[in-house]
Amino acid sequence: MKPQVVSFLIKCPDQKGLVAKITTFFYENGFNILSSQQYVNSVENTYFMRVRLNADGTNISKEALENNFQQLATPLDIDWSVNYGDKKQNVAIMVSHTSHNLYDLLERSKEGRLDCNVKMIISNHNKLRYVADMFNIPFYHLPVIKETKRDQEDQVVQLLDANEVDLVIMARYMQILSSDFIKHYPERIINIHHSFLPAFQGANPYKKAYERGVKLIGATAHYATVDLDEGPIIEQDVKPVTHESTPTTLKRIGADIEKLVLARAVKNHLNHQIIVSGNRAIVFPEAGE
Amino acid sequence: MKPQVVSFLIKCPDQKGLVAKITTFFYENGFNILSSQQYVNSVENTYFMRVRLNADGTNISKEALENNFQQLATPLDIDWSVNYGDKKQNVAIMVSHTSHNLYDLLERSKEGRLDCNVKMIISNHNKLRYVADMFNIPFYHLPVIKETKRDQEDQVVQLLDANEVDLVIMARYMQILSSDFIKHYPERIINIHHSFLPAFQGANPYKKAYERGVKLIGATAHYATVDLDEGPIIEQDVKPVTHESTPTTLKRIGADIEKLVLARAVKNHLNHQIIVSGNRAIVFPEAGE
Amino acid sequence: MKPQVVSFLIKCPDQKGLVAKITTFFYENGFNILSSQQYVNSVENTYFMRVRLNADGTNISKEALENNFQQLATPLDIDWSVNYGDKKQNVAIMVSHTSHNLYDLLERSKEGRLDCNVKMIISNHNKLRYVADMFNIPFYHLPVIKETKRDQEDQVVQLLDANEVDLVIMARYMQILSSDFIKHYPERIINIHHSFLPAFQGANPYKKAYERGVKLIGATAHYATVDLDEGPIIEQDVKPVTHESTPTTLKRIGADIEKLVLARAVKNHLNHQIIVSGNRAIVFPEAGE
Amino acid sequence: MKPQVVSFLIKCPDQKGLVAKITTFFYENGFNILSSQQYVNSVENTYFMRVRLNADGTNISKEALENNFQQLATPLDIDWSVNYGDKKQNVAIMVSHTSHNLYDLLERSKEGRLDCNVKMIISNHNKLRYVADMFNIPFYHLPVIKETKRDQEDQVVQLLDANEVDLVIMARYMQILSSDFIKHYPERIINIHHSFLPAFQGANPYKKAYERGVKLIGATAHYATVDLDEGPIIEQDVKPVTHESTPTTLKRIGADIEKLVLARAVKNHLNHQIIVSGNRAIVFPEAGE
Repeated sequence: MKPQVVSFLIKCPDQKGLVAKITTFFYENGFNILSSQQYVNSVENTYFMRVRLNADGTNISKEALENNFQQLATPLDIDWSVNYGDKKQNVAIMVSHTSHNLYDLLERSKEGRLDCNVKMIISNHNKLRYVADMFNIPFYHLPVIKETKRDQEDQVVQLLDANEVDLVIMARYMQILSSDFIKHYPERIINIHHSFLPAFQGANPYKKAYERGVKLIGATAHYATVDLDEGPIIEQDVKPVTHESTPTTLKRIGADIEKLVLARAVKNHLNHQIIVSGNRAIVFPEAGE
Repeated sequence: MKPQVVSFLIKCPDQKGLVAKITTFFYENGFNILSSQQYVNSVENTYFMRVRLNADGTNISKEALENNFQQLATPLDIDWSVNYGDKKQNVAIMVSHTSHNLYDLLERSKEGRLDCNVKMIISNHNKLRYVADMFNIPFYHLPVIKETKRDQEDQVVQLLDANEVDLVIMARYMQILSSDFIKHYPERIINIHHSFLPAFQGANPYKKAYERGVKLIGATAHYATVDLDEGPIIEQDVKPVTHESTPTTLKRIGADIEKLVLARAVKNHLNHQIIVSGNRAIVFPEAGE
Repeated sequence: MKPQVVSFLIKCPDQKGLVAKITTFFYENGFNILSSQQYVNSVENTYFMRVRLNADGTNISKEALENNFQQLATPLDIDWSVNYGDKKQNVAIMVSHTSHNLYDLLERSKEGRLDCNVKMIISNHNKLRYVADMFNIPFYHLPVIKETKRDQEDQVVQLLDANEVDLVIMARYMQILSSDFIKHYPERIINIHHSFLPAFQGANPYKKAYERGVKLIGATAHYATVDLDEGPIIEQDVKPVTHESTPTTLKRIGADIEKLVLARAVKNHLNHQIIVSGNRAIVFPEAGE
Repeated sequence: MKPQVVSFLIKCPDQKGLVAKITTFFYENGFNILSSQQYVNSVENTYFMRVRLNADGTNISKEALENNFQQLATPLDIDWSVNYGDKKQNVAIMVSHTSHNLYDLLERSKEGRLDCNVKMIISNHNKLRYVADMFNIPFYHLPVIKETKRDQEDQVVQLLDANEVDLVIMARYMQILSSDFIKHYPERIINIHHSFLPAFQGANPYKKAYERGVKLIGATAHYATVDLDEGPIIEQDVKPVTHESTPTTLKRIGADIEKLVLARAVKNHLNHQIIVSGNRAIVFPEAGE
């Protein structure tokens, strides 16, 4: 195996000897463990693990590694995935009118702070084409009205699949995706919602926040599921505000929170730090990476 | 007038010349303005002001001051209140089983960090009597069941009124107060809710927070109104949490947030920093006080 | 006067009747006060004020307004400035190798979230020319070595003055400016330092932060003065970190703090919210703007 | 072994197979791993581990466990400690005039939120005896002047040793302890400093913070070492402040930060979450505890 970092994400029923068995497996197959993180959900009796391995000292093939690991996994009822870090993930960004998240993601990607290929930007409006042009990213304008929703989504799916997109980022795409669409990309669509969910689900959260007179506003990045704004939460953050804030100033303050929250969520996903369990996202922190 | 700080809270329709008229009034009546804070709600065209005055240079009586100010106020349609800072406010604390907010309020009061007289602690359980005893505060155990709710509330009202209580603090009192009770004390009951409202209204917010998999938990202090958990928000704060947190650890982390949020809200109220407008609380920050 | 917002920044010895006299002046000259913010430093007996006026109802000329105000100001010993909001300020950004602050400022400016004209980018290296090109901003590469420092600074001064630059932003410009240079632009150079000053002054703050084992890192935006990293602080913020962080990860986490802190400081400056007093910056918050 | 949680803290040179060897050891000795946390310092090539074990399924004696583990540890050059959670740690609190940290620690201990026995309070002043009395904790008034410093410290040492004190908490004890004293209790004295170290070391940090015009203030809990305010940092936190704050209001705002920071640091110490390495403290987060 070439010098590289190999990451395993593991989920299984909790049971005695798990850590020993799994780490011994990697040791005996010639890997050095760079980091090993675990989480035990004792209510559900479930064990979660993220292991990062240094492959310098082994000549094992990917196929052999995976076959061997499956032999360990079967009796322990382990649900697992592996990533070899040798292929950048392909990303599509969907937007409507709002530019701040788009700029932020494109800048981070261009400057090597998000490890991915932004393959395309898809929008139901033409407004943000100039941002795509600045960063030399293909821009697809696919307008949508109620009657054309199914067709438009089909076009989107074709584009995503033709470009082998691994992750769809809804960076303030102000359309509700159909269940059919979402089911195509399980745990592969990240949405940013401009409130600290579950507060202010649905439309116009800043207006609702103003009317409720809250003293902090926030943003939430989550995996899109068929239930709007109900998917597993990856990242959240808030800022204090005062009575002085209008819906307009809340929107402006919120924009900076949205940028950080979405960028962190995307980074955690691209870096294989997340395991979804039911409606909760286990997000392992970086381990000296 | 004795050397003292006089505070006015003012609310009226916004109109040209307001600041000039009001500050000139105080100047001509011999006061020095220590601080003057204003807020204009341009949506509702309403003006809010908090003025703190140094009375050293004037001999005007309270009665004359108030009569004179009313003459200014009537044509401008000003809704106002004045406080002379010469009388500590009387406070009652209502609790059930949970001690952390109670300790915190009693310590701050005893050590002069909350400017009030804690006249009594009222509880539907006897459990926290020992805390009252440590701080030498009268403790009233008034149990309540559904059938006795009206009677118990009548007893509470009698106690509060007999002791001329200015502010009621619901420091994790786990009973829903009747509308009748709440209407006795408009903008004079502060409740702490253990979530960042409007998220997780009602019972068991930490359990709900765990189940929703949120990445931050919080607390909210608000004036109690007849709509449960819907009153004007005074203070809110949050802390980040991770998937590692159980409902039990959320409760523990949350306790520290609840203490700070409730103490700040009570201090702001006692210090005459708050004007309520509809369902929003205008909370002026301290001005070098 | 055209419909516009006029802002006054005022500083003078504290004295009785100040607010009344100043606000009456504006009222009598036909202005409506949009917001009035004050701060009294009682240690130094100094009064600071920021007033925003609506000029719709007055035909007074700028000259008359300023003459009239000076007549009020002289006996009260008022130090003041006025801004009519009718001319965008010109800004120059100085950089070296690091791009994140540059992108952030250019994006905010382009998208109307920073109210200024970015006239040029000046760098001692050529590396970031492509960012300037993306945003169509003139880029001047002015290399500097010890022997050419005076000449290079002269070139910079010529560029700034020829373009009537109002504000210089040192967005991670890794050169120490000479006292002569700094004295040309008093309170008109904003620097971002990548630590929570006064901790970790000077070079390599993230390395020092790692070695000291701090549990939070930060950034500070301040006016540049002849004492390196000692000028009046405008904005600061921090993020929690853990032992897992290396100097490299601290740098990455810190980049996001630097962006927000510098952008907020620049916005506060451009929006006339700051009065410098000695080595302290009085930064008035936005007032519903 | 009785049903209990056994915790190991481990530090050694990083080397291949460590996790496998250590976790296999615990598995083969009949333990179930409740949580396993690790940190690799790749600069210093050092490995740190915190393991919590469920001992329900084993009858091994403490002696056997420790002997067996030492056999594993010797060839791997492991520095380790074990805790059986079967004995509450004894704590002494040292104070001078300031009460807020004292109240906070006593309340948490009394209410079971800090797992320890507070054996005594030691002060160079008599002022806070009433707080000790409220909580029924022995209070020792040991005044100190320059000439009696050595004697007073000897008395303190005698008290601590006679009461088998495991941890000394300097809760705003405003005396500098001698190197001799500190060396008696390596990594067993926790101090709270009222600034975000390394900013504002030494006396009067809030006054210095005011004069520097910082926009945030903080507190730092650290192990006391012979270099004043230079010991390994366990916890830090900050709050935003504005120009309105005076040294007095900074002190008041800071008190709430000091309480939380010191309480968290003490909890982390008592809960065996900390390994000190050089001048840095590795503080493992709670793992679902």
